[in-house]
Amino acid sequence: MNNSTSLRVRLPVLVLLMEVVFLGLFAGFVTYDDNANAKFQNNETNPMDNSLYRDYPFFADVQVMIFVGFGCLLAFLRLYGFSGMVFNFLTATFTIQWAILMQGYFQFYSDGKIHLGVINLLNAEFACAVVLISFGAVLGKTSPVQLLVMALLEVPVFAVTEWAVLKYLKINDAGGSILIHLFACYFGLGVTFVLYRPSLNDGHVKEITSYQSDILSLMGTLFLWVFWPSFNSALTLKGDDQHRAVLHTFIGLSSSTMTAFALSAVFNKRGKLTMADIQNVTLAGGVTVGASVDMMISPAVAYALGIMGCTACFMGYRYLTPFLARRFRIQDQCGIHNLHGLTGLISCTAGICAILMANEETYGPSMYQIFAHRAPMEGDPKLLELQQLIPGLRPGLGRTAKEQAVYQVAAIFSTIGAAAVGGVLTGFALKLPCLATPSDEFCFDDELFFDVPSDFASMGVHKAPPSIKDI
Amino acid sequence: MNNSTSLRVRLPVLVLLMEVVFLGLFAGFVTYDDNANAKFQNNETNPMDNSLYRDYPFFADVQVMIFVGFGCLLAFLRLYGFSGMVFNFLTATFTIQWAILMQGYFQFYSDGKIHLGVINLLNAEFACAVVLISFGAVLGKTSPVQLLVMALLEVPVFAVTEWAVLKYLKINDAGGSILIHLFACYFGLGVTFVLYRPSLNDGHVKEITSYQSDILSLMGTLFLWVFWPSFNSALTLKGDDQHRAVLHTFIGLSSSTMTAFALSAVFNKRGKLTMADIQNVTLAGGVTVGASVDMMISPAVAYALGIMGCTACFMGYRYLTPFLARRFRIQDQCGIHNLHGLTGLISCTAGICAILMANEETYGPSMYQIFAHRAPMEGDPKLLELQQLIPGLRPGLGRTAKEQAVYQVAAIFSTIGAAAVGGVLTGFALKLPCLATPSDEFCFDDELFFDVPSDFASMGVHKAPPSIKDI
Amino acid sequence: MNNSTSLRVRLPVLVLLMEVVFLGLFAGFVTYDDNANAKFQNNETNPMDNSLYRDYPFFADVQVMIFVGFGCLLAFLRLYGFSGMVFNFLTATFTIQWAILMQGYFQFYSDGKIHLGVINLLNAEFACAVVLISFGAVLGKTSPVQLLVMALLEVPVFAVTEWAVLKYLKINDAGGSILIHLFACYFGLGVTFVLYRPSLNDGHVKEITSYQSDILSLMGTLFLWVFWPSFNSALTLKGDDQHRAVLHTFIGLSSSTMTAFALSAVFNKRGKLTMADIQNVTLAGGVTVGASVDMMISPAVAYALGIMGCTACFMGYRYLTPFLARRFRIQDQCGIHNLHGLTGLISCTAGICAILMANEETYGPSMYQIFAHRAPMEGDPKLLELQQLIPGLRPGLGRTAKEQAVYQVAAIFSTIGAAAVGGVLTGFALKLPCLATPSDEFCFDDELFFDVPSDFASMGVHKAPPSIKDI
Repeated sequence: MNNSTSLRVRLPVLVLLMEVVFLGLFAGFVTYDDNANAKFQNNETNPMDNSLYRDYPFFADVQVMIFVGFGCLLAFLRLYGFSGMVFNFLTATFTIQWAILMQGYFQFYSDGKIHLGVINLLNAEFACAVVLISFGAVLGKTSPVQLLVMALLEVPVFAVTEWAVLKYLKINDAGGSILIHLFACYFGLGVTFVLYRPSLNDGHVKEITSYQSDILSLMGTLFLWVFWPSFNSALTLKGDDQHRAVLHTFIGLSSSTMTAFALSAVFNKRGKLTMADIQNVTLAGGVTVGASVDMMISPAVAYALGIMGCTACFMGYRYLTPFLARRFRIQDQCGIHNLHGLTGLISCTAGICAILMANEETYGPSMYQIFAHRAPMEGDPKLLELQQLIPGLRPGLGRTAKEQAVYQVAAIFSTIGAAAVGGVLTGFALKLPCLATPSDEFCFDDELFFDVPSDFASMGVHKAPPSIKDI
Repeated sequence: MNNSTSLRVRLPVLVLLMEVVFLGLFAGFVTYDDNANAKFQNNETNPMDNSLYRDYPFFADVQVMIFVGFGCLLAFLRLYGFSGMVFNFLTATFTIQWAILMQGYFQFYSDGKIHLGVINLLNAEFACAVVLISFGAVLGKTSPVQLLVMALLEVPVFAVTEWAVLKYLKINDAGGSILIHLFACYFGLGVTFVLYRPSLNDGHVKEITSYQSDILSLMGTLFLWVFWPSFNSALTLKGDDQHRAVLHTFIGLSSSTMTAFALSAVFNKRGKLTMADIQNVTLAGGVTVGASVDMMISPAVAYALGIMGCTACFMGYRYLTPFLARRFRIQDQCGIHNLHGLTGLISCTAGICAILMANEETYGPSMYQIFAHRAPMEGDPKLLELQQLIPGLRPGLGRTAKEQAVYQVAAIFSTIGAAAVGGVLTGFALKLPCLATPSDEFCFDDELFFDVPSDFASMGVHKAPPSIKDI
Repeated sequence: MNNSTSLRVRLPVLVLLMEVVFLGLFAGFVTYDDNANAKFQNNETNPMDNSLYRDYPFFADVQVMIFVGFGCLLAFLRLYGFSGMVFNFLTATFTIQWAILMQGYFQFYSDGKIHLGVINLLNAEFACAVVLISFGAVLGKTSPVQLLVMALLEVPVFAVTEWAVLKYLKINDAGGSILIHLFACYFGLGVTFVLYRPSLNDGHVKEITSYQSDILSLMGTLFLWVFWPSFNSALTLKGDDQHRAVLHTFIGLSSSTMTAFALSAVFNKRGKLTMADIQNVTLAGGVTVGASVDMMISPAVAYALGIMGCTACFMGYRYLTPFLARRFRIQDQCGIHNLHGLTGLISCTAGICAILMANEETYGPSMYQIFAHRAPMEGDPKLLELQQLIPGLRPGLGRTAKEQAVYQVAAIFSTIGAAAVGGVLTGFALKLPCLATPSDEFCFDDELFFDVPSDFASMGVHKAPPSIKDI
């Protein structure tokens, strides 16, 4: 809590510098997309057909998840609630701006301009989710300056990976199991591997919750839970695909939540419930259904995926996280490898199975919309036939189910690879001096970066439990 | 806090058993409804006409109410915040799954399958509201195992009652005053009647709030308040009916809230406001407008209903709840009889008056849409006439206003009867050994079922008030 | 805390009196608008075209902002959390009812009736935002009775000003920079000027936050942040205009948030972050983009406006607020002059620039929709030409850009004038005896108007900071 962690120069310099850069890029390269441009409105444009009305409801729900849901969830430590919520706020805001530009360049660029609409903001929120998940690995031991540098480096790696995977491998990943959860997880693990702090392996005196912080964090869980169907379905095709995505996510979350309660009780020596399980493991089902969320997997499979994801996640928290910390120097503060890595891998496996089992009997001709790359190529007579049934169908690559599956596998490995390498390199960048790294002693402590109110000092002290008569 | 309340075996056995049952039922009997089934999409299907876009916004709002709103509201006790929020979470998740199956069987079953869409989830959330309201009667003195057993038994009774009332009595109850509020209330009272604990009649040392728990609970109130118009209008007819439902709910809540403030001050000896009134009584208007929420009752009547419901609810809390506990062994922990029973009865009465006064002059021909059973029967020439004005009008039963009113009365009594009997029987089931019933001493205490953080022990202790100089 | 501040008679009398008045006015003068009236539904009415589906999503978002967002934000003081949230709840509920009637009379009145739809509620929520912003100036030193009297007087002044400005000056102010933010700010400053309390200029012993109150307030900020795009776009034209409003608000908020972090760190002597900055200054961008929020200002300008607004707001908190209190007897408790006044003025200036620079090259023919008063007058041949491009275009006043700018300036000054005069007069009304004014000592103290739980007494006491070993 001295000069080396003062934010007085470091944070403003970084932030204002980036603001100038962003402003320059916005001024030079960002314009409105057709749905937001007054010039493109004419007598054939019905205002209510504007893409705003398709995208904004989902965007608003994801906003609540990112800012309120994540923010509260990350405020689970007794003395680190300000930091959890506020760094989440700062990082999210920064990431979204940067992602609008980076993803905009890769995905929404034409005629020398990035075309901006609410759909870009929605995509940027997903990039934001990526950075915030990675943040979970290093929560409590990084300064806000480090977090911004992490976001600064992670967003381009993510944007390039996303673009390459979507453009060259052309995969199905509606819920973002590969590109969001696996990427975020292995990037975060890469970072925390480099930032290893041996002294924290035995626990930290401030690594505790309080009654209020547990409740706050649970509130974050509830907001994430409630809006997760919007998250998983935001970028699917409209219509029945999005409908299924909502159903599967809800079912997966529900079975996952019940499983989490059962496991929490059974593994607790005194047969009680553990708040950390309820705050985190309940959400596993939302990730696990991700890769196949828009497919015809049947409600029962979504249910089973929720149970499996939750079980893997729970066991991961119990056995894998401590093991990784001790043996592999991977200190995963919030256990993102359990909630996003293991579940993501199960999700991807399920997605591949669903791809292999997809057939026209189950899907009807709209199979070639969901699995767009399996649609016949331009010129194939089958394409014309299908286009009579599904007018807007675009020509695809004529892939078989197996070919598509192979590309999915390739996407998984290349995403994990890119993320891990990017994470490790970012970790080294975060070790640079001048980034206000907290000392071990001041990890998990709001006082390092905040002016705290006068009752903060007394929040750590506790007397012996009172007898019931004292109440 | 010993073996008899350990959840280690009981909870997992029950939960996992039910999960296997649910999974089997999902696998055997649940398929997608046409709006979620890829096979039924063709060149005549416009994706944006999918029922998802009509149902999902309301579903999302109700989700916030169920998980965040109820969760926070039930966390009003100082030492029972974990339990309030977490048991709400568990019970809600369990109930929704079970209700999807039970209501699905009764309402969405055809060709040997339950057809699943977001509309089922929305209906299941209402079943969930029913169970959570009943939960309010026994909050603090039931284990999570008991709550799950209660949900397990309440959902089928509710689903059968709902189905029978809608199929045979064919009533108007858009806001669910009869089927949701009255059913939930009298079921809960039945349960708590059997679970009577004489020693709790004089209050419990832990039955107190804290500053933070009061604020948390108020937050729950605010979320319920804000989204109540969505709750009351979610299942109305689309268009002007839903529009009126939103207006009436909002107006009823507003007048109810103001009244609650006035009554709270006037009945407080020191002329101060009481948080419990503001957390609960303000919401009475939302229930009171329920039964007539989609009818042409005029905004002024919605306003008056809010005032009347609030007054009845307030007086109930003040005089009826203690009376019921002392004389009738009905310990109604959260006062659900005030917030759902009394207001529900007023609402039903208002609904009947509105039915009796409905005429074509006020409603135009669309009267036969709102009061569907008053539409002329198949073959009646008046039907053809009306169908020219309202193309989609379905033939009805040709009921008169008075006939419809009689059916409403029948529905009220049969619902209350079914609920009370079901509740009493459920109460006996909850007295079975092995359900981890808390002892009187450990009622209203999170420590019984949770690993609590270290500051929990000090939350009950309070020193003498400091003089102002100490601050 | 004696008879002079007892609410026992004062509050109920005022509330119940107003309820009788409101009920009478509702009964006599309020009917449904065409979209909520069953009688106006016929075979040409498509239920999904009902205005409900255009207005309700935005209304629901604004509801969360008003009740949860504002409520939590105003609960930032340690011993004044109940009052912050609860008085917000009461004032908002009261204001909305009153505004439905007052705005209804001025804007939705025809055939002797106010025609009620969700659009009225949405407008009333904006009136509510006005009163709640003004409330910010006098938070902590007013009784709920005073707040209701303030709302009672402010709503008519606001409704008349709004009506006069829209009807006679005919301005562009989609985000409400003039009519909401400037009006609310100068009205509030007028009130607080009259209610000046010299002894509070040196700070009050209870004017402190706690760890939990800071987190609660931040949560309010996050809800406001997340839904602000809905607030700013709720009343724009549908289609691309609303789309731009969402984009600009989001961008402005993002750049504003980053700037707030930078300034907070740079102006803190120890290089730490200050929660009050993050709770308030981050939101400045949402106000600053308001006046030009639907115009083609380009994303970069929205970005720059966010930075400028945030900087002005931050400097205002730091230098102007203490100065106004000391020199001008204007004690602005929440600093509304910074968050709504300074930013509002910048916003208006930007709006005028945008109006002056608007041309058909940028906007296409739809320029005459956004700047409706620049459309050619009835009979002008240009109008017919334009109507072929934009079928629904209504004839305007044929104003030039400069003329429109002049009217904007006139609107700014007249709004500020009306607000300030109205505020001062209201301030005098609030000084009437019998309004339960808190004494200086009991400012910022929940105990004055609430039955507080037993832990309230200990919330002010704090021992010396413990050494780390005590934790």
